[in-house]
Amino acid sequence: MSADNQQERLDNKWVSGFVDGEGCFYVGINKIQNMTLGWQVLPEFRLVQHKKNIFVLKKVQELFGYGVITRNHGDRFELRVRKIGDLKKLIEFFQQNPLMTTKKDDFNLFKKIIYLMDKKEHLKEEELKAIAKLSSEMNRKIKPKFLESSETIRPTS
Amino acid sequence: MSADNQQERLDNKWVSGFVDGEGCFYVGINKIQNMTLGWQVLPEFRLVQHKKNIFVLKKVQELFGYGVITRNHGDRFELRVRKIGDLKKLIEFFQQNPLMTTKKDDFNLFKKIIYLMDKKEHLKEEELKAIAKLSSEMNRKIKPKFLESSETIRPTS
Repeated sequence: MSADNQQERLDNKWVSGFVDGEGCFYVGINKIQNMTLGWQVLPEFRLVQHKKNIFVLKKVQELFGYGVITRNHGDRFELRVRKIGDLKKLIEFFQQNPLMTTKKDDFNLFKKIIYLMDKKEHLKEEELKAIAKLSSEMNRKIKPKFLESSETIRPTS
Repeated sequence: MSADNQQERLDNKWVSGFVDGEGCFYVGINKIQNMTLGWQVLPEFRLVQHKKNIFVLKKVQELFGYGVITRNHGDRFELRVRKIGDLKKLIEFFQQNPLMTTKKDDFNLFKKIIYLMDKKEHLKEEELKAIAKLSSEMNRKIKPKFLESSETIRPTS
């Protein structure tokens, strides 16, 4: 890689275009003991790149001012954001530098979930169901385990 | 897709970020009859998207002012630029709105080839070999058929 590229500062709009192509907004809903309702809501933003472009992940991390770089799989690394406080800043970033593809739809659902979590709504059963439903509309419309689980199906009286 | 997104104008830097993720600079060297040297150099820029994002390809096409949108494969469509005149404008665009990942290395090789072709250098045998060598360094370093062909291997006297 040419050195000039490594030193060049990233433009916010470039980051939004790059994330439209390569980024992922994801909300996992996992079964866990010791949680109020037995389920954990785990929202995360991921930007995955081959290791040859790890310097770009570092520049995005620097521009954001948060996020963790970790191995994703094999030769691939990811910049990951999981803390609610940081995710709120990330939402602010993409409101100022809007996504342009259908990824914006995922982002809008993600935003709703983060706002609900910020108000601790995910600790209430009905709101947790609403979050699970929102998350099921994201990405490839995979139904989360939470919505499929027999534990969430209550007999009517 | 929300209507506001469809109407929003693209930012040049967003396009450069999006192409860093999703675009492809490619130079095919194909065996063809009726060409001066029996080989045709076919440079092209491609931006491939699922059909749900065809509106984004149209917006990029509109911003560039050139390129053709055509089916790539199945549900995927591409914005393709092949004319040398348009590719020269494309090079100008990415010089003003630089790529930031290692895709810039492909772009720089692509640029060299377009400049050689613009001077008709690809119609001379030695220069054609130089172009084939440059193209072999692009993307996944696939050796073009031209460099492998026995027709390009001459016995030494």
